[in-house]
Amino acid sequence: MNWLLPEHIADALPAEAAQIERLRRTLLDLFRVHGYELVMPPLLEYLDSLLTGSGHDLRLRTFKLVDQLSGRTLGVRADITPQVARIDAHLLNRQGVARLCYCASVLHTLPASLTASREPIQLGAELYGYAGVAADREVIRLMAAALAAAGVPAARIDLGHVGVFRALAAASGLDAELEGALLQLLQAKDVPSLREPCGKLDEPLRSALLALPDLYGGVETLAAAAEALPPLPAITAALETLRQLQASLPDLPLSFDLADLRGYHYHNGVVFAAYYPDCSSAIARGGRYDGVGRAFGRARPATGFSMDLRELARLAESATQSGAILAPAAAAQTTLAAAIAALRAQGEIVVERLPAETCSEGPRCDRQLVERDGQWLVEAITGTDHGNG
Amino acid sequence: MNWLLPEHIADALPAEAAQIERLRRTLLDLFRVHGYELVMPPLLEYLDSLLTGSGHDLRLRTFKLVDQLSGRTLGVRADITPQVARIDAHLLNRQGVARLCYCASVLHTLPASLTASREPIQLGAELYGYAGVAADREVIRLMAAALAAAGVPAARIDLGHVGVFRALAAASGLDAELEGALLQLLQAKDVPSLREPCGKLDEPLRSALLALPDLYGGVETLAAAAEALPPLPAITAALETLRQLQASLPDLPLSFDLADLRGYHYHNGVVFAAYYPDCSSAIARGGRYDGVGRAFGRARPATGFSMDLRELARLAESATQSGAILAPAAAAQTTLAAAIAALRAQGEIVVERLPAETCSEGPRCDRQLVERDGQWLVEAITGTDHGNG
Repeated sequence: MNWLLPEHIADALPAEAAQIERLRRTLLDLFRVHGYELVMPPLLEYLDSLLTGSGHDLRLRTFKLVDQLSGRTLGVRADITPQVARIDAHLLNRQGVARLCYCASVLHTLPASLTASREPIQLGAELYGYAGVAADREVIRLMAAALAAAGVPAARIDLGHVGVFRALAAASGLDAELEGALLQLLQAKDVPSLREPCGKLDEPLRSALLALPDLYGGVETLAAAAEALPPLPAITAALETLRQLQASLPDLPLSFDLADLRGYHYHNGVVFAAYYPDCSSAIARGGRYDGVGRAFGRARPATGFSMDLRELARLAESATQSGAILAPAAAAQTTLAAAIAALRAQGEIVVERLPAETCSEGPRCDRQLVERDGQWLVEAITGTDHGNG
Repeated sequence: MNWLLPEHIADALPAEAAQIERLRRTLLDLFRVHGYELVMPPLLEYLDSLLTGSGHDLRLRTFKLVDQLSGRTLGVRADITPQVARIDAHLLNRQGVARLCYCASVLHTLPASLTASREPIQLGAELYGYAGVAADREVIRLMAAALAAAGVPAARIDLGHVGVFRALAAASGLDAELEGALLQLLQAKDVPSLREPCGKLDEPLRSALLALPDLYGGVETLAAAAEALPPLPAITAALETLRQLQASLPDLPLSFDLADLRGYHYHNGVVFAAYYPDCSSAIARGGRYDGVGRAFGRARPATGFSMDLRELARLAESATQSGAILAPAAAAQTTLAAAIAALRAQGEIVVERLPAETCSEGPRCDRQLVERDGQWLVEAITGTDHGNG
């Protein structure tokens, strides 16, 4: 049974791999023409560096190894975003805006859900060096364009802002433990359990925290939030940012969720998540995380998003596979070799039949290259309408 | 100093990453039009499975982890070839020929050389289910075509055949320990040290083993080998195979090296390695490894090759980076948005300038999109000859 793979780990066989590769190219090309430059951070880093500024959650999800060269502990990345922040902060060292993107595997010690892979292919784009809402607008729009280009357009994009909860927590003088407990309950939208710890807090903060889980829905949510939440400057600013985004993205299916606190530990502003019909978890998510670069010696405004290309490939409709052309094996510098090379240059798949090879079960050969009066011609194999030159 | 990376581990920054991505696409497209289907085996497998049928060397080079789901030991792949053999043997389960290719990162506990990365990007192609020399010919030709397409054409392709040493070892009745010692000395071409262990052997095997390190060079090597080596059936067959390859690949810079025993533990027939000027180690290598699938329950003839895309990207000349177009940020459904979308659809990089963004240091903007009489036009930024629509 040595061909069995660990749970939540899988091969991508030809049809799935072709789909992943197609989407990979489509999306990296989309990022490219929007000015986002590709970077490839390594699979391995020193654990300290990999977890800099990140939360407990990522620490648990990261595989640890011992470096035989240094004796230090290494981690296999569980998230690429902090690596790209390190590159922006330290390696590129640009003063102005940097737009970066990436696509590569990450590993998780435990799957994020019952159906999740422990080796997601994380694809994302990040914008550094711009604190204004226009940067959030740009990346949200790019995320929506990426999902549309993949054939998996977002049915709904939820916007939130971690500044709301942060402001309430700060005003309440919560200690870290209680803040953590409330955070967990809010993330689970567990209102009954939320009542008990909130009971210790003064009004209006208690009511405000209890109101958060209900503050989701359409644009009316922002008005409801302004009613339900105390007019702390940070809250007013957060709601104003969300209002600006809503106004400047009229063509996107936006809604709001002020209790969306996933990634709270590194996010510090607008957060967003894209949903697709019949998928309970988000198919792409992102947000602002201005703090992360500080740990690498240079705090830079930052916002971006990422998605799992495996999941996206599963949801997207498969492209029709083009059939292949079966050809006799060609000796060098013959007219046959030239005919095969010309077809391949046009993007046709040409399988050179090995001597006595019975048939190819790989790419489906629906045509063949045959010699007629000294000319090499492509003909249908079956005599049906598949064949054309 | 938490931005320092472990030794022999590096980021690929935009210029290098673009180069790697360009070559990745060029070579995977080349494999595709030759009928090779892409597969993506996982980064992690159970260690037993990952090391099935492989040598001690790979065991040392493989990072080990504990699986929190099963308690079993996992390995991070150090080589993709055995994984693809597993896919052929077990998942595809084809009776006929299977042509497969792949491109992904592997991890090594220790670097293969002083300058090697511990995270090579292994790119390769494998042909399963065909025992004849025509399959070796096809993959050697494909390897040469891949290197040429990458702009790193092989200056020399060395052919060898592990059957020669295997036959001599078997005829000498060597025990595993002595065979291993001789193998190491032969790989190092250490003739003086080879004399001592060979002294214990009878003629003509002693002279034959001592002759191996000198059996390299042009086609005359095959005649010299026939002279210097005993006419054991396996040796005669191996030399005949090499002769056939030489005759059927007249356009490739072939030479011979009968002491090339790298990968001896899993290879069992023709082996080959491509060299580039001023590179001491091979830039691509491969060979026949018919035995590997057996461990997965189905022995299949197999031959293929692989190369490190990072190394190839370093050697290949960089493609000239195209300049970008700077545009004002566009609201949805405006003529500006349409103009930007049209340029991007043509493959142009268009950076939408964020409000008050001073300049972009990322993709170099040599043109800008400006409104003239209600039309959006692309103009040079500097007034030099860079600008054109």
